[in-house]
Amino acid sequence: MNYHPQYNNFITADRSYKESEVVIIGLPFDSTSSFRPGSRFAPNQIRTISYNLETYSPYLERDLESIAITDYGDLELPFGNVMKTIEVIEETASKLINDDKKVVYLGGEHTITYPIIKAYKKKLGNLKVIQFDAHCDLRENYLGDKFTHATVMRRIIEEIGEKNIFQLGIRPGTKEEFEYMKKLASLYYFSKDSITKLLSNIKEDDNVYLTVDMDVFDPSNAPGVGTPEAGGIDFSQFIDVIKMLDVNVVGFDIVELAPDYDISKISTALATKIIREMILKFYY
Amino acid sequence: MNYHPQYNNFITADRSYKESEVVIIGLPFDSTSSFRPGSRFAPNQIRTISYNLETYSPYLERDLESIAITDYGDLELPFGNVMKTIEVIEETASKLINDDKKVVYLGGEHTITYPIIKAYKKKLGNLKVIQFDAHCDLRENYLGDKFTHATVMRRIIEEIGEKNIFQLGIRPGTKEEFEYMKKLASLYYFSKDSITKLLSNIKEDDNVYLTVDMDVFDPSNAPGVGTPEAGGIDFSQFIDVIKMLDVNVVGFDIVELAPDYDISKISTALATKIIREMILKFYY
Amino acid sequence: MNYHPQYNNFITADRSYKESEVVIIGLPFDSTSSFRPGSRFAPNQIRTISYNLETYSPYLERDLESIAITDYGDLELPFGNVMKTIEVIEETASKLINDDKKVVYLGGEHTITYPIIKAYKKKLGNLKVIQFDAHCDLRENYLGDKFTHATVMRRIIEEIGEKNIFQLGIRPGTKEEFEYMKKLASLYYFSKDSITKLLSNIKEDDNVYLTVDMDVFDPSNAPGVGTPEAGGIDFSQFIDVIKMLDVNVVGFDIVELAPDYDISKISTALATKIIREMILKFYY
Amino acid sequence: MNYHPQYNNFITADRSYKESEVVIIGLPFDSTSSFRPGSRFAPNQIRTISYNLETYSPYLERDLESIAITDYGDLELPFGNVMKTIEVIEETASKLINDDKKVVYLGGEHTITYPIIKAYKKKLGNLKVIQFDAHCDLRENYLGDKFTHATVMRRIIEEIGEKNIFQLGIRPGTKEEFEYMKKLASLYYFSKDSITKLLSNIKEDDNVYLTVDMDVFDPSNAPGVGTPEAGGIDFSQFIDVIKMLDVNVVGFDIVELAPDYDISKISTALATKIIREMILKFYY
Amino acid sequence: MNYHPQYNNFITADRSYKESEVVIIGLPFDSTSSFRPGSRFAPNQIRTISYNLETYSPYLERDLESIAITDYGDLELPFGNVMKTIEVIEETASKLINDDKKVVYLGGEHTITYPIIKAYKKKLGNLKVIQFDAHCDLRENYLGDKFTHATVMRRIIEEIGEKNIFQLGIRPGTKEEFEYMKKLASLYYFSKDSITKLLSNIKEDDNVYLTVDMDVFDPSNAPGVGTPEAGGIDFSQFIDVIKMLDVNVVGFDIVELAPDYDISKISTALATKIIREMILKFYY
Amino acid sequence: MNYHPQYNNFITADRSYKESEVVIIGLPFDSTSSFRPGSRFAPNQIRTISYNLETYSPYLERDLESIAITDYGDLELPFGNVMKTIEVIEETASKLINDDKKVVYLGGEHTITYPIIKAYKKKLGNLKVIQFDAHCDLRENYLGDKFTHATVMRRIIEEIGEKNIFQLGIRPGTKEEFEYMKKLASLYYFSKDSITKLLSNIKEDDNVYLTVDMDVFDPSNAPGVGTPEAGGIDFSQFIDVIKMLDVNVVGFDIVELAPDYDISKISTALATKIIREMILKFYY
Repeated sequence: MNYHPQYNNFITADRSYKESEVVIIGLPFDSTSSFRPGSRFAPNQIRTISYNLETYSPYLERDLESIAITDYGDLELPFGNVMKTIEVIEETASKLINDDKKVVYLGGEHTITYPIIKAYKKKLGNLKVIQFDAHCDLRENYLGDKFTHATVMRRIIEEIGEKNIFQLGIRPGTKEEFEYMKKLASLYYFSKDSITKLLSNIKEDDNVYLTVDMDVFDPSNAPGVGTPEAGGIDFSQFIDVIKMLDVNVVGFDIVELAPDYDISKISTALATKIIREMILKFYY
Repeated sequence: MNYHPQYNNFITADRSYKESEVVIIGLPFDSTSSFRPGSRFAPNQIRTISYNLETYSPYLERDLESIAITDYGDLELPFGNVMKTIEVIEETASKLINDDKKVVYLGGEHTITYPIIKAYKKKLGNLKVIQFDAHCDLRENYLGDKFTHATVMRRIIEEIGEKNIFQLGIRPGTKEEFEYMKKLASLYYFSKDSITKLLSNIKEDDNVYLTVDMDVFDPSNAPGVGTPEAGGIDFSQFIDVIKMLDVNVVGFDIVELAPDYDISKISTALATKIIREMILKFYY
Repeated sequence: MNYHPQYNNFITADRSYKESEVVIIGLPFDSTSSFRPGSRFAPNQIRTISYNLETYSPYLERDLESIAITDYGDLELPFGNVMKTIEVIEETASKLINDDKKVVYLGGEHTITYPIIKAYKKKLGNLKVIQFDAHCDLRENYLGDKFTHATVMRRIIEEIGEKNIFQLGIRPGTKEEFEYMKKLASLYYFSKDSITKLLSNIKEDDNVYLTVDMDVFDPSNAPGVGTPEAGGIDFSQFIDVIKMLDVNVVGFDIVELAPDYDISKISTALATKIIREMILKFYY
Repeated sequence: MNYHPQYNNFITADRSYKESEVVIIGLPFDSTSSFRPGSRFAPNQIRTISYNLETYSPYLERDLESIAITDYGDLELPFGNVMKTIEVIEETASKLINDDKKVVYLGGEHTITYPIIKAYKKKLGNLKVIQFDAHCDLRENYLGDKFTHATVMRRIIEEIGEKNIFQLGIRPGTKEEFEYMKKLASLYYFSKDSITKLLSNIKEDDNVYLTVDMDVFDPSNAPGVGTPEAGGIDFSQFIDVIKMLDVNVVGFDIVELAPDYDISKISTALATKIIREMILKFYY
Repeated sequence: MNYHPQYNNFITADRSYKESEVVIIGLPFDSTSSFRPGSRFAPNQIRTISYNLETYSPYLERDLESIAITDYGDLELPFGNVMKTIEVIEETASKLINDDKKVVYLGGEHTITYPIIKAYKKKLGNLKVIQFDAHCDLRENYLGDKFTHATVMRRIIEEIGEKNIFQLGIRPGTKEEFEYMKKLASLYYFSKDSITKLLSNIKEDDNVYLTVDMDVFDPSNAPGVGTPEAGGIDFSQFIDVIKMLDVNVVGFDIVELAPDYDISKISTALATKIIREMILKFYY
Repeated sequence: MNYHPQYNNFITADRSYKESEVVIIGLPFDSTSSFRPGSRFAPNQIRTISYNLETYSPYLERDLESIAITDYGDLELPFGNVMKTIEVIEETASKLINDDKKVVYLGGEHTITYPIIKAYKKKLGNLKVIQFDAHCDLRENYLGDKFTHATVMRRIIEEIGEKNIFQLGIRPGTKEEFEYMKKLASLYYFSKDSITKLLSNIKEDDNVYLTVDMDVFDPSNAPGVGTPEAGGIDFSQFIDVIKMLDVNVVGFDIVELAPDYDISKISTALATKIIREMILKFYY
C-alpha cells in the first residue's frame, strides 16, 4: 500500500518523535464527566481545523515547513483522578524536557499548566511565567479544592516565586485577587510601553514559559470558551505583543478552548493560528 | 402598587407554601463548575418555558388550575461540595414530607435522587422506585466516586432493597450492569403487558417514588441532555404508561435536562409537558 | 430547614425591599405573542448568567457586596395590552421613586422606557435623558402606532423637552430622523471630547436617566439583539464613557436583549457586566 | 443574453401565470416587527430548499413536471395593518379563484387562512375545511383581539358553519376549546378508521379546503415552528392520510413555519416535501 | 514515560494492525457533495464521540472488548482528484482483504463505496450488496459526471450484476430510478416479511457487503447529513433488521455523515452506536 | 387585483430593467469551495435581510430611494460545469455593460469575478481592480485546477496586467504568494496614508472594478464565510476607506458569504449594509 494512514495530526507535524525539534501534545483534561465536553476535545478540534491553515506566517515571514515537528497525540490521562492526572502530566513534561524537545501543550483546562511548570522548574532551576488570561486564577482555594482552574496560578507562584509571574489581559477577579496582583506588581497591559517594562524584568538567559488561556481574547473573537468575559483583546493585539517578546521561551500551552460552544468555529481557527505564530516566533 | 412582581414560578404555581398541596422545588446541582452549565439551570428554564403550556391536559382531562401549587424556587446548595449537597437535599425533602406536601423535584443531575429517596424511606418505612432512564446508573462506583450520576441507582437500591426497583427505558450499560438487572429482574418495557406485570408487583398502599431522567426519551425528542442515546421513547409512549400507573406516588423528580444543548428548546418544552401530566395524574 | 430557597435573583440582590437602596426589576414586555420570545425573557436570563459575574469591578475598584440591593422579580404585565402595560409600568416606577429607591429596569423592549420617564419627570420636575442606542427611535409614528420601539424617544422628547435628550451610538435611521437630530443637536460620540461637551450641558443637580439599548454594541459583541447593526461599540468604549459620566443618575434601564438569538450567551454576559458597572458607578 | 435570470421560484413552478393550472403564492404575514422574523420569511426559505427536492413522488407515483405551475412570488402586504392585510388576502384569493387557478398558499402565520376561506366560501357557496394542526385555534378571542393565530378557526367556523370543520392532530388547548370540539364532533385521528369516518361526512362534490399548520408534526420532525408541542405526527402518518383523502380539494395552505428556529433545516425540507405531495394528490 | 499518547482511535480499537481481526479506516473524501458539505471530517468526529459509547451491546449481548480491533486512522487521499482517490481506495481495500482483515470503512461521501466494492468483487468473485439509504443513487450520470454520490450504486451494479443489489429505506428518486428499481426488484422494506424475502435471495456462502448512508435514518434522528429526507427509519427499526441479517458479511461502510450540521451531535452518536452493533453482529 | 406579487428583490430595487441605472444580479455559483460551502444561496439571503435596512446612509448622507435600481434575480447557471458557467457570466456581464448599467454582482464564490473582469476589460480597454480580501487568491493553480477561488486573482492579473491590481486586507497566504505580491507592490493597508498612496496610482478617468470577499472582515464581524481568518477589519475601517475612494467605479461584487454558517445573521446584515454604502458612494 503506497498511501499511509493519516493520523489526525496538527498541520505539518508529521515527523517522527526522534527527528523532531518541536513536539505538540494534547492534554485532554477537563472536570466534566459527560458526553458534552468542555475543553477535553479541544486538542483534536485544533488538529482538524489546522488543515485549513496556511503554513506560512506573513506576520513573522516564517514557514512551519522549515521546522521538524511531531504530533504526539493526546496523553492518556487517568480520567476523573485530578491528583494522578497532575502526576502523569508532570512526568510527561519531564520526559519531553529531558529529550530536549520544544513543546506545545494543548489543553484541556488551565489546571494542566501547574504540573508542566513544576517539571520545568525542577529541571531548569529558574522559571518565569507569562500568563495571557482573562482571569488571574489566583484564589487560595476554590470550593474547597486546591487544584482547579481558579487557583492554578496561585499554585504556580508557590513553585516559581512571586516575582516571576507576568499577567496580561486580566479582567474580572475578586477584590482580594486584584490586591494580591497589586502587591505582586504582576499586571501588565497590551501596550508597547507596558510590554517594554515587562521585558526589562526578564533577562536574556531567563527561562520563560507562556500560558495562553483562550478567554484572554474578547468573546467576539473567541466565543468558544468556558467563561467569556467582555473587554478582551483581538488577534492584532496578541500578535503585536508576541512579536515583541524576544525572550527564551522553553515551553508554552493553549488552554480552555471549549469546542462545543464554538458553533461558528472561529475560536478554534483563532487558536490554531496563534499556535502557528507562537511556534514560528519561539521555536524557529 | 397594584401589580405584584412575578417570581419566575412554574405556571399556576403561585400559591403560598402554606395553602399548597403540591410543591415544586429546584435542585440545581451539577458537577461542572464553569459558566457553561449542564443541568444546573434546568429548573429555571423549565419555569420560563412553562408559560407556554396550556394548564389543561386533554390526555387526562384535568386542569392544573384545580390544584393548589407553590413554587419554592431553587434550593441554595453548597456548590462544589457533593456530600454537603446530599445532606441539604435530604434535610429539605424530610421537611417537605413532614409538612405533608406532594413534591415535584426539578434537577439537576441524577445524583439528587439519592438523598430524596433516603428521606422518603426514613419517613415512610417502605418505598418502591420506578426509574425512567436510558442508563441504569447501577455501577458500584464511577471514577472512584460513590455518589455520581452513574452510581445513583446502586446507592438507592442499598437504601430500599433489591426488590423495590423498577426500571424502564434502559438502553446502554456495561455487561455487569445488565447481568445485575437480570438478577434483580428490574427491567420492564414500554408495553401494556410489561407495565401490567410491573403493577402486579406494587400493592395498593405501597409508597412509590418516580424518577425521570430526560434521556429516557429518544434524542430526536430530547436532544438537550448530557448523554443522548438512540432508541428511546417518545411522548406518546410515556403518557400511555403514566396513564396506567394507578399507584400511590409520594414524590417524583425530573433530572438531567441540559438547556445549553437544547437550542430548539423542544427538550425543555417536553419536560414541562410531562411535569404537567405527572402532577395531574399523581397529585390530583 | 436551614437552607432557603433561592429565587433567581441578580447576583448579590438578596436583601429585603425595605432595607435596599437599589432595586432591580424586570419589565418583560415585548410585542410577540408566541413561545419564541424576543426580549421578554431577557430579565431572567440576565439573572441566571449573573451568577458567573465577579461582584468586584476592577474598572471602578468597587464591589457589589457593599451595596444593599434587592431583586424585585418581574412585574406582572397585562400581556398583549400596550396602553395598560404602559400605565402599569408608570405606576410602578412612581412607587419606586416615592420609596426613594435607585432602580435598575431590565427590559423588555425599548417601549418600556417611555412610562418610566413619565414617572420620573412627573416626580422630579426636570429630567435629562442619555440614550445609548444604535437606532434613534425618533419616528413620529411607526406602522400607524404611536407607542413602539421605533417611536419611543420621540414620545420621550414630548415629555422632557427637545433640549434634554443626549444620544450616543446612533447608526441607522431615516433621513428625517437624522435631520431632526441635527436640529436637536442631540447626537454625541464615543470620544473624550464629545462626552466632555455633553457633560457641559448637564448641571450638577440635573436629574439624569440613562437608557441602554443593547444594540448600541457592535453585533460582534452583542449578536443577541432584535436588530443587529454593524459599526457599534465594544465594552471598552462603553466603560470609558461611563467612567466620565459624573452626573446625578436617578434611574437607568437595559433593553432589547434577545436571549433566543444569543446562542453563545456572550450578549447576555455583556449585559450582566454593564449592569454591574452602572450600579457601581451611579448607585454606589 | 441566452440565460434568463432565475427568480427564486418553487421547483418546477416556472410557467407563466396564464398557462398555469396551479399557482403558488407567498403570504408573508406575521405579527412581529423586528429583523428576527417568525413565519414571514417561510415562503422564500421553502422556495430555496425546494431545489433539493426530487420532482417525482414515489408515494403517489406522479411527477411535478407533469403539471403547469407558476410561482406568483410573495404578495405585498400592508405590513403592520392586520385588517387591511386580511382584506388584501381575500381580494387576491378571489381573483385567483375567478381565474380558475388551483392555489398553494404559503404562510405566514395561521391568521392568513381566514380571508382565504372567506373568498372560497363567497364564491363556492359551500365549503368544508380540514385542519392539520397541534392547536385547535378555537378561542373566542385572544388578548382582546378577534383575528389572531389562536382564534382563526373560530372565525372560520363563523363563516362556514359548525358542521364543516374537521380537525386532525390537535394536542393542547383549553378545557373550553376541548368541550367546544366535543360539541362540534370535529376531532379526528391519524388512523384508518377515523379518516374513513371523516370521509363519510364529505360528499363527492363538496368543496374542501385544507390548512396545514406545521406544528401538527412532532417537534422532533419540525422543530422550526413557533410553538413546538410534543406528541405530533411524522411524515409517514401524514402521507398515509393524504393518500386516503379522495375529496375535491379547491385550495390549501401551509402555515407557521419559522425558519429562524430551523437551524438544521429539516422542518423546511419537510414543508417542501408535503407541498409536493399535496400538489400531486389534489391538483394532478 | 509510562503513559502512551492516545491517538484519537475508535473506542477499544487500540490493538496493533497485525494482531487485529477488525480494522477501522477513515476515507475522508467529500468533494462532490451538492446541498451540504463536510462528510470529510466524519471519521474523526465518530472516533471522538465513540468514547461516550458503552462497549457492551444489550441488543446483541456481546462486547467490543472481546474483539481485536485496530484503528488505521484516515487514509491520506489525493484531495480534489476523484479518479486518483478511487484508485487509492481500491488499492487499500485490496490490501486489507489480502491481509484477511474484516473492515469498517468510515466515509466520506457515498462515492467511496464504489472502489471498495471493486476490490471485494475482484478478490472474491461473487458479491452481493445491501444498501441502507434514503436515495437509490442509481442515476446513469449526474451533472455530466459518472462518479458521484448520485450515481454510485449504478456503477456498483455494473460491477456486481443487476441481481446482486438489495436496497432498503429508499425514499426520493427520479421516475427513471424508481422504474429501474422495479425492473431490478431491488427494493425491500423494514418489515419482517420483506427482510425474510431478502434473505431468501442470499445463500449461506454468498459474500455480502453492507453500505449504510446515514440519511436512511429520519432527519429527526440524523439531522447531520447532506440531504435530510423525511420518512426515514429510527434506531429500533435498524437494529431489528440487523439482528435478522444472518449472512456472511465481508465488509461494511458508514457514509455521508455531515458533522457540521450535527449541532446537537445526536447524528454522530447514532453513527457510533450502529458501528458498534454492526461490528458485534457481523465480525464477532 | 391591486397588489402585485413581491419578488424577493433587494430593498428599493423594484424598478424595471429598462428604467434602471443600477442592476443587482445574483451569481449563485459555489461548486469549488473547499472548507465550507454554500455561497450559492447568499444572493437570496442578502435580499431577504435587506428589508431590515434603512435606505438612508448617515455615513454618506444619501438615500437609495434617489436611485433607479432593478433586481435582475439570480442568473441561471449551468450547475456543475465551471467553464460553461464562466462563459455565461462573461456573456451576461457584457450585455449589462452594453446596456450601460452600473452593476452590483452578488456571489457566489470568488471565481465569478474572473469572467466579469474579462467582460469589462474587453469592453473598456483598461481596467484597474481593487480587491478587499483576506486571501490573495494568487496561486498559479490549486489542486490541479486553473479556475478556483484560490487562483482567481492570478487569472485576473493575466487579463488586466500586473500593475493594475490593488489588494487590501490580505492575511494568510503561501510564501510564494507573499513574494509575488511584494514583486507586484500590490499590497495596501487600511490606513489613510496607504489609501492615499493607492489613489495616487489611479488616474481620474481610469476604470476601476471593486471585488469584496466577505472574509476581508474579521471573523467576529463576519463568521458566515467559508474560511474565517482572524485579524480582519470591521465596518468602520471599511467605510472609512470607501469614503476616500473617489475613483471611477464601473462595477463591483460581493462574494463568499456563506449563509449556512451565519446563524446569528450578522454577516448577512453586514453584507447588506456595505452594498448600500457602495451603491451610494459609487453609483449615486
